[in-house]
Formats: sequence, C-alpha cells, structure tokens
Amino acid sequence: MKRREFLKNTAVAGAAGVAASTLAAPAIAKGHTEMNIVSTWGRDFPGLGTSAQRLAARIPELSEGRIQVKYFAAGERVGAFDSFDEVASGNSQAYIAAEYYWKGKHPGFAYFTAVLFGFTFVEMEAWMKFGGGQQLHDELAGGFGMKGFPCGNTGVQMGGWFNKEMNSASDFKGLKMRIPGLGGDVLAKLGASTVSLPGSQIYENLVSGSIDATEWVGPWNDFFMKFYEAAKYYYHPGMHEPGSQLHMGINKKWWSSLSKTDQAVIEAACNEENARQMAETNFNNGTYLNRLIKDHGVKVRAFNDDIYDSFGKAANEVFAETQAHSPLAAKIHKSFAASRQDVGRWMLLSDAGYINQRNRVLGIEI
Amino acid sequence: MKRREFLKNTAVAGAAGVAASTLAAPAIAKGHTEMNIVSTWGRDFPGLGTSAQRLAARIPELSEGRIQVKYFAAGERVGAFDSFDEVASGNSQAYIAAEYYWKGKHPGFAYFTAVLFGFTFVEMEAWMKFGGGQQLHDELAGGFGMKGFPCGNTGVQMGGWFNKEMNSASDFKGLKMRIPGLGGDVLAKLGASTVSLPGSQIYENLVSGSIDATEWVGPWNDFFMKFYEAAKYYYHPGMHEPGSQLHMGINKKWWSSLSKTDQAVIEAACNEENARQMAETNFNNGTYLNRLIKDHGVKVRAFNDDIYDSFGKAANEVFAETQAHSPLAAKIHKSFAASRQDVGRWMLLSDAGYINQRNRVLGIEI
Repeated sequence: MKRREFLKNTAVAGAAGVAASTLAAPAIAKGHTEMNIVSTWGRDFPGLGTSAQRLAARIPELSEGRIQVKYFAAGERVGAFDSFDEVASGNSQAYIAAEYYWKGKHPGFAYFTAVLFGFTFVEMEAWMKFGGGQQLHDELAGGFGMKGFPCGNTGVQMGGWFNKEMNSASDFKGLKMRIPGLGGDVLAKLGASTVSLPGSQIYENLVSGSIDATEWVGPWNDFFMKFYEAAKYYYHPGMHEPGSQLHMGINKKWWSSLSKTDQAVIEAACNEENARQMAETNFNNGTYLNRLIKDHGVKVRAFNDDIYDSFGKAANEVFAETQAHSPLAAKIHKSFAASRQDVGRWMLLSDAGYINQRNRVLGIEI
Repeated sequence: MKRREFLKNTAVAGAAGVAASTLAAPAIAKGHTEMNIVSTWGRDFPGLGTSAQRLAARIPELSEGRIQVKYFAAGERVGAFDSFDEVASGNSQAYIAAEYYWKGKHPGFAYFTAVLFGFTFVEMEAWMKFGGGQQLHDELAGGFGMKGFPCGNTGVQMGGWFNKEMNSASDFKGLKMRIPGLGGDVLAKLGASTVSLPGSQIYENLVSGSIDATEWVGPWNDFFMKFYEAAKYYYHPGMHEPGSQLHMGINKKWWSSLSKTDQAVIEAACNEENARQMAETNFNNGTYLNRLIKDHGVKVRAFNDDIYDSFGKAANEVFAETQAHSPLAAKIHKSFAASRQDVGRWMLLSDAGYINQRNRVLGIEI
C-alpha cells in the first residue's frame, strides 16, 4: 500500500502543472510512476508475446519515461491464469491477456475476446468504440475493481487441421479433436470427442494418431507447429474465434491515481497496439498461407453449408446458457447481438462483398 | 525561420531530460511547440471533419500541452487543395487530407488513399505497417520534404445510387452519372457519361433528371443527402474506393526538430484516430443502412459478375498508365500488388469467408 500512496502523490504533482514541476524539478527523475505488467503470454512468443512486449515498451516512450514499465511474461512473476487476481489485488498494476480467461468470474468477459459466431476485428472495433462495448466492459470490469482497454487482436482463426476431408456434420461423430473452450463444446454436441492439449503436446498426438484433428490459430502460428506433416486438410473459417481481442486490464484504483495525460498515454498505446497486432497477424497469415500451400502441399478446404448449419445450431444452445447467468450477461449479449445484426449486415455489402468480387475478378483464389 | 529555430531548441532541451527540465523549469509553460494543422475537410463535416478535429485535440492531450495545436478546416487558413504546398513550404506544420489529392504531383500518392480494386482497411493496415507500405510512403513523401502517417479510414464505398436496375455492363452506356476520379474513368470506358459535381449540387441534378446516377460515400453520409428520393437502387460494392485511408502529412524539417517523445506522441495520435474513424464509419454505416431500407424503402442491389468483370478490365488499363509514370510508381504498384495477392487471399479464408457463412447461418441478409 505504501508504494501506491507514493505513486498517487507524484501523479497529483504532475497534474498540477508548472508550479508543481518547478517545485518538484529535482525529483522528476525519481518521481516517475511504476507500472508492473504481468502477462498470460510466454516471453517472445511470436504474435501474442512480442505484441505485449512492444506495448509495454511503448508506454515509457510515449510518456517520456514518466511511466516506468516492468513487463513480466507468463510465469516470470505469477502464473498466466493468476494475472487477473494479481492486478485486482493491486500487487501489479496491469495485465495483458485475453478476457475470456476470466469467464469463470463472469461469463460476460468472453464477449470481449471472442464468442462463437461473434465479431471480426472491424466489427469488434465498431462495437467497442461506438456501439457501447467499452461502456459495458467498464461496467463489468469495474465490478472487479478493474479498468481495461483492447490492446491486440489475432483475427479470424482457422477451423483446424484434419487427416481426412470433412464432407458433412456427421463426419464429426467420433472424431478425436484437440479444440478447447466453447468451440470444443460445439463439436462435442456434434459427437466429436474433444480434448484440450497444451501447444507443446499437439504435434506428437497428431502424428501418433491419438487425435485425428486439431485447431491452433492461423497460418502464421500453425506453420511452425508442422501439423501439415500429419494432417493435410486445413479447414476454414473457424466459427469459434472470429477475431480474438486482447486486453490490458488495469487496477482501477491505480488508474484513478494517474494524471489525465498518463491515462491518455496508456489508452493511446493500447489503441495503437490493437491495430498493429491485427496488421501483423494478417500480413503474416497471408505470407505463411502461401508457404503452407506451395512448400508443403497443404489442401485448404472450406467447411460446407451443412457443417456450418450444424455449428450454428450447437452454438445457439451455448449462448442460451450464458444469457441466463445474470442481468449484466444478458445486457452484454443483447448489445453484442444488435451490433452483429447491423454492422454484420453492412459487412456483407462492404468488406466481405467487395473481397468476394475483387478476388473473383483478379483470380485471387484459394 | 526564427520560430522554427526556437522550437528546435526547446525540443532539444526536452530530450536532454532532468538537467534540462531543472534549468528550463520556469519556461515550460511558454516553451511549447506550436503545430498548425490545415485540413481538406470542412469544419464539423460528419466523419471526415470531426475525425480530423478529434485528432488535432488529442495531440496536446497526449503531450501534456507541450505540443499546442491550432486546427484550420478547409478554407480557414488555405483552400483545401493548397494544403500540401502550405505544409511543404513550412508555413504550416501538418495537414490532414487524402493523399490521392496530390496525384498530380506524383501518381504514387493514390496508392496511399485508395486505388481501383485496391485494399480494404485491414489489408491497407497490413501493407502499411508490415508489408513495406510506410517505407514506400516515406520515400515518396520524403522527396517533397514531407513525412506522413495514416490517420483515418472511411472503409468500403458503395457503388452508387441509380434510378433503374443495372443488369449488365451495357446498362452503363449513355448513363449520366456523377462519379469523379479513377472510378469515373472506369465508367467512361464502359460508355457512361460521367460528371464531377460538388456534394451540394448532386441532389438537385438527380431530382431534375440531369443525371441518372451518383455515388457519394456510404450509408451514413448518403443518408443525409436524401438521394433515395430520386434514385431507389443502391448498388454495392464500389470498386473505386474500397478503403480510403486518410493521412497526416508533416513538414519533414519540422518533424526532425521534434524530440523522440513528441514524434511518438504524434504517431500514436494518428494510429489511434486511424482505427477510431474506421470504427465510427462502420458502426454508423450499419445503423444508417438499416434506416435507409426500413424508413425509405431503398432497394439494395449487388453489381453482378458481368458488371464487375467489365469494371476489372477497365481498371487494368488505368493501372498500366500509372506504372509507366516512373520507377517509384512501378515499385509502389509492385509492392501493393504483392500484398493484395497474399493478404487478399487470406481475407477470402478469414474475414470475408467467415462473414459469408456466419451471416448465412444467422439469416443476417441484405
């Protein structure tokens, strides 16, 4: 607590402007704010880890060193899934994570990362920034003494790697597949036998035939996992994570102690990284999709209408359970669904409609 | 020049850290950097104007007032199209505009706003930030003494308002349509009689029958133009501006005089607004598309394959002319085309592929 009180005082001094900076001039070098950031990602993990580290480095850069950041990758200070409690308790000031990790605390958190049949990146952006999403997140996180901002996105996930063609929903019956979370719940409803394996164990299980299929992320990350050695069919699009948004979660008391400028700097750094990681992922997915097809003979396939219809039916059942949890969960769902309807329809005319036609005309095909 | 020298000195003082801030403490309140921003948008124009004003206000906020911004809407200091020369000459420090306005100076500038059959927002982001786009823009703008950052995007434009259904490319023969720029060149190749009218004159020309069709922007901006009173058929998607990126163009000498922190702050503010404006546009387009259909009986139609094939053929001819201009124009085109191929293919599997299936399953239709 002592350290936090000290930080509060220096922040007030900063906000008081010229007089304070004259008075406190000799103390400026020491009078910085310390910000410990814990993360759910491994150090240097391509994409998730490197993005979080880039964001951590940007905050002192933008604040001219007023905010001194110490960044701890998963396990360096606390375990990945202890990040929320670490920050809510005030031991650290912020985490970088995916909010759906905290759905055990409240199922509403899932909506701010990705839900079944949910938002793409641009749809999530529209909702968060202009459709009431940020306000709903403030309400939800505020209940836990937290404040947060989106700070990354990994885009649409692929549907997974399969060792055979999937021609109908019935092909999922008895299929042994690695797919955790709600996506796994959907496939279980279709009769698949789903397992949750950490990344390091997927390859060996796929090669040995212990599992028939797996999902991971997308072309960039999947390339290095070498799944194509055991499963040639790469299916798209995934329905489980169509645009996974990442978050910086901040201890609200600490946040309130910051000057308006320092708050603005942290928000801006998050906003920047949010877009930067999406750009990085899309660029690399384009590059590595190319290499998977050309260098490794991967066969890209689309889930057909029959399969997607079955996904949709199963997903509806999962949503019904979430909404029943609490009035806040129902309110978040309602806002989400309204944006998905209106912005989602616009997407059909704009981004999706345009890419379909442009690519057809130019022969940019799978 | 005198004022610029002064700015340079204070910037150096800022970078020198503690010693400097002790020495210069009494001068901090006056020792700010002045940044005059001129713009090509009218004051308070919804979307373009309000976004530029939001960006201008964000810079002092993020820099704790070190950078004092004066914002001038189009005509308030110089005419819209004099913005480039105003900044390149050093009279003002920055402009907010669309780079394709400067294609008379170099056709390469068009690639950084929008070109025929070009990038959507997320594709542009991937190219600018990770595909070499920013470096190419630095090279191009640097030749004019300028430095720039993307600072907004208005997304996919609609194809336009028509007073009849357009069933084939031949329906464009003899059609009188308001469509400026390269989009107009394409339609002219299809036999349309294209005109360029300022926004304020389109409605009366459409109602009187002087023109048969017009394009403008998208549902949000088009709603207020009331084109639906004279032309019920609203076609999508446009091929002429699939994701118009906006830019802050900065005098490079002035930019080099800034501290690293002030440079970072300006870049961050641009990055934030870039995403924010896209989110705002998509959210509002979703809302107003709904109202156009429900309240005004607008009939939304898709250009069919025959029409899009003809657009593509005509667009190719326009591209050939651009590449022939100079080695730099050819280099920019080559980089653009490579990203469009790789990231564009990924889009088919991800954003577009997903939205097609999700919307079909959920019945989110036009």
